Amino acid sequence: MSFNSFGQIFRITTWGESHGPGLGVVIDGCPPGIRLTPEEIQVALDTRKPGTSKFVTQRKEPDAVKILSGVFEDDRTDGPRTTGAPISLMIENVDQRSKDYSDIRDKYRPGHADFTYDAKYGLRDYRGGGRSSARETAARVAAGVVAEKVLAHVLDDAVSIRACLVQMGPHKIERDNFDWNEITNNPFWCPDPVAAKLWEEKLDAARKAGSSMGAIVEVVASGVPAGLGAPVYAKLDTDLSSAMMSINAAKAVEIGAGFEAAALSGEENADEIRMKDGAPHFLSNKAGGILGGISTGQDIVLRFAIKPTSSILAPRKTITRAGEETEISTKGRHDPCVGIRGVPVGAAMMALVLADHALLQRAQCG
Amino acid sequence: MSFNSFGQIFRITTWGESHGPGLGVVIDGCPPGIRLTPEEIQVALDTRKPGTSKFVTQRKEPDAVKILSGVFEDDRTDGPRTTGAPISLMIENVDQRSKDYSDIRDKYRPGHADFTYDAKYGLRDYRGGGRSSARETAARVAAGVVAEKVLAHVLDDAVSIRACLVQMGPHKIERDNFDWNEITNNPFWCPDPVAAKLWEEKLDAARKAGSSMGAIVEVVASGVPAGLGAPVYAKLDTDLSSAMMSINAAKAVEIGAGFEAAALSGEENADEIRMKDGAPHFLSNKAGGILGGISTGQDIVLRFAIKPTSSILAPRKTITRAGEETEISTKGRHDPCVGIRGVPVGAAMMALVLADHALLQRAQCG
Amino acid sequence: MSFNSFGQIFRITTWGESHGPGLGVVIDGCPPGIRLTPEEIQVALDTRKPGTSKFVTQRKEPDAVKILSGVFEDDRTDGPRTTGAPISLMIENVDQRSKDYSDIRDKYRPGHADFTYDAKYGLRDYRGGGRSSARETAARVAAGVVAEKVLAHVLDDAVSIRACLVQMGPHKIERDNFDWNEITNNPFWCPDPVAAKLWEEKLDAARKAGSSMGAIVEVVASGVPAGLGAPVYAKLDTDLSSAMMSINAAKAVEIGAGFEAAALSGEENADEIRMKDGAPHFLSNKAGGILGGISTGQDIVLRFAIKPTSSILAPRKTITRAGEETEISTKGRHDPCVGIRGVPVGAAMMALVLADHALLQRAQCG
Amino acid sequence: MSFNSFGQIFRITTWGESHGPGLGVVIDGCPPGIRLTPEEIQVALDTRKPGTSKFVTQRKEPDAVKILSGVFEDDRTDGPRTTGAPISLMIENVDQRSKDYSDIRDKYRPGHADFTYDAKYGLRDYRGGGRSSARETAARVAAGVVAEKVLAHVLDDAVSIRACLVQMGPHKIERDNFDWNEITNNPFWCPDPVAAKLWEEKLDAARKAGSSMGAIVEVVASGVPAGLGAPVYAKLDTDLSSAMMSINAAKAVEIGAGFEAAALSGEENADEIRMKDGAPHFLSNKAGGILGGISTGQDIVLRFAIKPTSSILAPRKTITRAGEETEISTKGRHDPCVGIRGVPVGAAMMALVLADHALLQRAQCG
Repeated sequence: MSFNSFGQIFRITTWGESHGPGLGVVIDGCPPGIRLTPEEIQVALDTRKPGTSKFVTQRKEPDAVKILSGVFEDDRTDGPRTTGAPISLMIENVDQRSKDYSDIRDKYRPGHADFTYDAKYGLRDYRGGGRSSARETAARVAAGVVAEKVLAHVLDDAVSIRACLVQMGPHKIERDNFDWNEITNNPFWCPDPVAAKLWEEKLDAARKAGSSMGAIVEVVASGVPAGLGAPVYAKLDTDLSSAMMSINAAKAVEIGAGFEAAALSGEENADEIRMKDGAPHFLSNKAGGILGGISTGQDIVLRFAIKPTSSILAPRKTITRAGEETEISTKGRHDPCVGIRGVPVGAAMMALVLADHALLQRAQCG
Repeated sequence: MSFNSFGQIFRITTWGESHGPGLGVVIDGCPPGIRLTPEEIQVALDTRKPGTSKFVTQRKEPDAVKILSGVFEDDRTDGPRTTGAPISLMIENVDQRSKDYSDIRDKYRPGHADFTYDAKYGLRDYRGGGRSSARETAARVAAGVVAEKVLAHVLDDAVSIRACLVQMGPHKIERDNFDWNEITNNPFWCPDPVAAKLWEEKLDAARKAGSSMGAIVEVVASGVPAGLGAPVYAKLDTDLSSAMMSINAAKAVEIGAGFEAAALSGEENADEIRMKDGAPHFLSNKAGGILGGISTGQDIVLRFAIKPTSSILAPRKTITRAGEETEISTKGRHDPCVGIRGVPVGAAMMALVLADHALLQRAQCG
Repeated sequence: MSFNSFGQIFRITTWGESHGPGLGVVIDGCPPGIRLTPEEIQVALDTRKPGTSKFVTQRKEPDAVKILSGVFEDDRTDGPRTTGAPISLMIENVDQRSKDYSDIRDKYRPGHADFTYDAKYGLRDYRGGGRSSARETAARVAAGVVAEKVLAHVLDDAVSIRACLVQMGPHKIERDNFDWNEITNNPFWCPDPVAAKLWEEKLDAARKAGSSMGAIVEVVASGVPAGLGAPVYAKLDTDLSSAMMSINAAKAVEIGAGFEAAALSGEENADEIRMKDGAPHFLSNKAGGILGGISTGQDIVLRFAIKPTSSILAPRKTITRAGEETEISTKGRHDPCVGIRGVPVGAAMMALVLADHALLQRAQCG
Repeated sequence: MSFNSFGQIFRITTWGESHGPGLGVVIDGCPPGIRLTPEEIQVALDTRKPGTSKFVTQRKEPDAVKILSGVFEDDRTDGPRTTGAPISLMIENVDQRSKDYSDIRDKYRPGHADFTYDAKYGLRDYRGGGRSSARETAARVAAGVVAEKVLAHVLDDAVSIRACLVQMGPHKIERDNFDWNEITNNPFWCPDPVAAKLWEEKLDAARKAGSSMGAIVEVVASGVPAGLGAPVYAKLDTDLSSAMMSINAAKAVEIGAGFEAAALSGEENADEIRMKDGAPHFLSNKAGGILGGISTGQDIVLRFAIKPTSSILAPRKTITRAGEETEISTKGRHDPCVGIRGVPVGAAMMALVLADHALLQRAQCG
C-alpha cells in the first residue's frame, strides 16, 4: 500500500504536517556501506528552503535535518555509513507562526485541498495546509540526497541529475539561450539569463498585485545506462510521471517530445540509431531517453507543470464548511510562484525513481 | 512489486506476448456478488479490436475472452456472480501470421523497445513486439469492464466514463463542435464531425505514404463523488498519470488545465466555489476534478498523448544487434494511428484507478 | 496487496477453483535467460498429482501444465528461455466429476471453509471446495520449479531443497532411522522405512474407517549461503512461516528447534561457532539455519503441521446455510492424509521464499 | 516491499537502533476521527518497559512516546483525533550506557544476529544489538495501541485481545488453573498462580547462574466477527504467523490445536457446529477460530515460542570477525527470559493483523 510511501525496493515513507512538531521520512531498502552525513543532506535542503529570496515564502525555517537511524560509524568505517537498516530523517518545524486560523478553519480556499480533505476525512488539520502543505517536499529532497548516493554507489558515479525552470507564467525560455551554468545566477533556476530578467519583473508585479504565477520544470538525468526500467506497469515513464504528479500543485507531465509528439509524423518522432565510438548512438531524443519503459542510454528528459499558487490576496468566492457562500482572501507568507521550489523537488524525485530502478535491475537482471 | 501488476486493492496482473498462445489478466480484490458474463467483456473488447476499419491494424483477431475463475452461478445467484476469488481472463491469439522475422530479429526498429529490451534482458521475443506489443492492452480493456462494474456496485451507478480523440497529428478538434454523440459516427472516436472529416483525409494520406500520426486522447469521468483519492503518493492525479503513461506509446499526461495551468494567474486557475441545489458547486474546472489528489465531485478530466506509430514503411537508419549500421522498413499490418485504439484503453485505465480508489475509500474512511 | 499473490520481487499470483475450467499462476520478476520447459515442470507436478496411490484422492487429473507466456526460443537461445516477462502457467481441470452438490451446497462441512466463505463473501463456489480446494497447490508446485531454477541461476546450483513426512497421526519417525534415500520407497515421503510400514497399516485402517489422519512435514534447504533474509519484517523465519501457513490445512510451523527451544537453556540453545576449513562452522543447529532473520549458511530446517483431512465419511453435526441443525457425511474421493501431498508443496514454498530473497539480496547488497 | 513495514492497508514502518537517538514507527492508513493521546500509548508501553522487575533488563528507559503527526485537535474535535494522515510516533533512547563495545564489536555472540548481519551487510551497528535489538518491539507495542483503537472503531468495541505466558523453560501451566485475572498478579503474565510461583524460583536460579530460559506466549482475541481474513495468501493464519515470527527470538507459531492437530483424527479435529441463540455455535475450537484463513467468530487462539535469551554470562565458543576461534561471555543488563516482554508484543501484533483485516474486509466486502 502506498498512501504515504513511494518506491518499491528503495522505498520512502514520509510523515508530518506544516504546523506540527516536524516532518520526516523513513528510507527503507538502502544498500549498506554508503557514506552519509547530515551535512550532505543539509546542502540540498538549503536549496529549497523557504525565505531565501523575496520570491519564495518568507517563513523562516532552518530545515535542519537529523539522522535518527540507519547510519553507523566506528573506527573502521571511514565516516558514517549506511547499515542497510531503515534511515529515519527528521526536520523540526520551528516557525509555525501562532496565528489566527479561524478564516481557513471555516472557509474552503479555492484551488486548495481544504474542501476535498473535509469531504474525504470529515476533519482536517487546517494549520498552514496541514498534510497537504508543500513542506512535505522537504522530506523528498532529503531522501533524494540518499537516492543520489545510491545511484552513485550502484552505477559508479555515472549519473548526474539537473533541473531548471523553463517557463514561468506564459513566458518560456529561449532554447538557444539555454545554459545550465546560469541556473544559480538567478532566484528562479532559470537557464536563460534573458528570460530570468523578464521573470523577475513579471513575478514582482504579480507578487505586488497579490496574484501568483505557474511554471514548468524540466528535469534531465544524464549518464543513465541503457536497461533501467521495466515493462509493463513499472515503466520508467510510468514511475517518473507518478513521481512528478505526486508533487504538490503538479498537473501535467511529459517525457521527451511529450504532447508535441502527437503532432509529429512517425518519421519525425522515431529516433534513428547509428554507431558512435563503438556504441549505439541516437540521432535525436524525441523519446526522452526511454523506449518501452526502459532507458536507452540517452538523457532522460521530462517536464512537469506546477499550477499558480492558490494562496492569493485577491478575494475569491467560496463557501464555508457549513455551506454558506462567502469570500476569502489568503494573507500570509506565500510563494508567488511555488514552481520555483519545485525545481529541487523534481530533481529529487528523479533520483528516487532511478535509484529504485537501479536496485530493481540488480535484482532481476543481476 | 508491480512489474506487471497495477492497482492496490483492485489489482490486475497481465501476461502474454503478441505472438504467443494468448494473453490474459488476473484480477484480484474484486468484491463478491457482482454479475459478470464474458459477453459483457466482449462488447468492450470489440471496441479496440484490430481489423475494424482501414485505420487500424488489419490483423484479424476475434479477441474472444474466456472467464477461467472467480465467477460462479447456481440456481440462487441470478446469473454468474463474482465470488471474491481472483478472476482470470484469457484471450487466445489466433492470427499470429507465421512470417519471416529475420529482419526485426537482427535490427532494432527506431521508436520501438527492441534495443532497450535487449539491453535490459539480453534476449527478447521479437515476434510482433513480444511483450511490448499493444496487444497487452486487450487485457486492460477486459479488466476495465470488471472495474466499471465494481464502480457501479460500490458507487450506485453514479459514475460514467467516456473517452475520445481530441487531436490527431497537429489537427485539434474545435471545442465548440464537441458532441459526445458523435464519437461512434466515425472510426476515430472523434467528438467533432468536422475534424473527423479532415482526420479521415489526413490519416488516409499518411497511411498511403507509409507514414503514421500521433494523437491526444481525452478521458472524462462524471459522477465521481467528492472524497476519492489519497494524499500524498496515492493521489488520484498520481495514479491516473501512471495509469495512462503505462499505455504503449504514451508520452505525456495532464489533468484539468494541465500544462496550460502554468500560464494562468492564481485568480484564473483556482476554481471558485458557490452553493447550488444545496451542494458545493465549482464555477470552473481548471483542477480537472481533483484537488490535493482527492476528487472534488466535478468531472475528472485528463488528456494523454500517444506518439505516432513507430512501425512505418519509410526506411529508417538503425543498427543491428551486432552493432552494424543498417536501415529498416517495417512492413506488415500496423495501425497508422495507434492513438485511435488508445481511446478504449484510456477509459479502461480510468475505470481501474477509480475502482481501486473506491475500495480504498471504503477501507480507510468506511 | 497480496490476497492471491506471494513474494516480493519473485512474485506469484495464483487463480482457479477446484471445478472450474482450470487453475494457474502468473510468475512475475523472474530473471531472463533461464532455460525452462513444460516437461521440467511436469515432473514436479506429477509428484503431487492425485490418483497415484490409494492414499491420495482417486480423482484422475493429468495436471498437464502449459506455458502461456514469458518463455522464448529461437535458433540462438539453446532451448526455451525465460525473457523477464511474466510467466503464465495453466493446468486444465479435466476430471471434475459432474455430481450432485446439493449436500455441500446447503450444509457447512465441519473443518472446512464453507461457513467462513459464506460469512465473508455472501456466496461461494462449493463445487469441490472451490477456491479453498487443495488443487490450488498445483500452481505452487509449478511455480516452485521456476523458483528452483532461479535459485540455481543466482546461487550457482548451491542450494538443494528436500522435504519429507516426519509424523503421521501420532506416529513419529525415529531420527536414528532417517534416510533421505527412503522417501521415494514408500507412498508417504517417509525417510524411516520402519515408520513407513506402520503408517501404511494405520492409514489404511483410517481410510477404511472413513476417518483421516494429520501429519507433520519437514523441509530442509542445504547450501543456502549466509546472508539471505532481511530484518525486521522480511525475516526468513517470517516469510517461511507465512509461506507454510498459507498451505491448505496447515496450522503450525516451527524453525530449527522450534517449540522445543522454549524448554532449553540459553547455553543449550545458542549454537556455538568454530572455524572449519577456513569458514565459520556451527557446532549445532538449534537456530534452523537462521539468526536475526538471516541465513547462517547452515541447513535451513522447518516443520509444519497439516491437520487431518476434514472430508470424512463419519457423520458430523453441522448446520445448514439457513441455520438449521443437521448432519453431514462427506462422500467422494478424498485424501485420507492430505499431509502426504503437502510434502512437495512445502518444498515448493521453500524454493519460492529463497528465490525471492536471493533476488532481494542482489538488489540491496549487490 | 516490506523490509521494515508490516500490514497492507493499516501499515506500520518501524525504524531505530538500540543505541541510536531513538526509535519510532510511522502508521499509515489509519482511519480518521479516532481519539488518540500519547497517554493511552504510554500505558501500553509501560507494560513492556525495561526495568520493571528483576526478571527483565535493568536498562532504565522511560520509553516516553511522542506523537509527531497525524493527530489534530481543535475546539470541534472533542480531544485529539486521527486525521487520516500518517501517524509518526517516536521514543527517545535515554539510557544507552556508554560502555566498551570492543568485545561484541569483534566477536560474534552465539544465538545472536551478529554473524549474519555482517555476512549480509558487511558492517553492523553492534551497540546493544543495533537494529536486531528487542527495543524495536517498543514501536510495535505503540502501534498496537492505535490498532486496537481502529478495531474498536471499525468493529464497535467487539474485540478484546489478551496474552499470557503458558510455558517458561520446560514448565507449563496447568490449564485447569487458567485464570486471566492472575496475569497481573505476577511479573510473568502467568495465568496460573501455582506455575507462577515455580517460575519465579526457576528463573531466579537461572538468572543467578548466568543462564536464561525460553517461553511460550499465548494470544487470544475474543469477539472477532466471522468473515475477517482472506484466502489464499492473506489468510489470517498466514498473517498471524508472520506477525509472530517477526518478533525477536520467536522460532515457532501455532494456531488452535496447532502441532497437536497432526495427531488427531478427522473426527476429533473438525469442530462440529450447532445453533445457539440463533447463531452458529461451534462445539470445540481446534481450528483456533480460523477456517480457510477466515475467522469463524470463535476466539482466535495462537501460541508462539520465544527461545531463551542468547545473551548469557556462561562463556561460549565463538569466532571473531577476523575468523579466529575465541570465547565470549555476555555481560550487561539482559532479560533472563525475554519471552516475558514478548507477551505485550504478541498482543500488539494480533491487534495489527486484525486491524488490517478489518479494513481489508471493508474494502472488499463493504
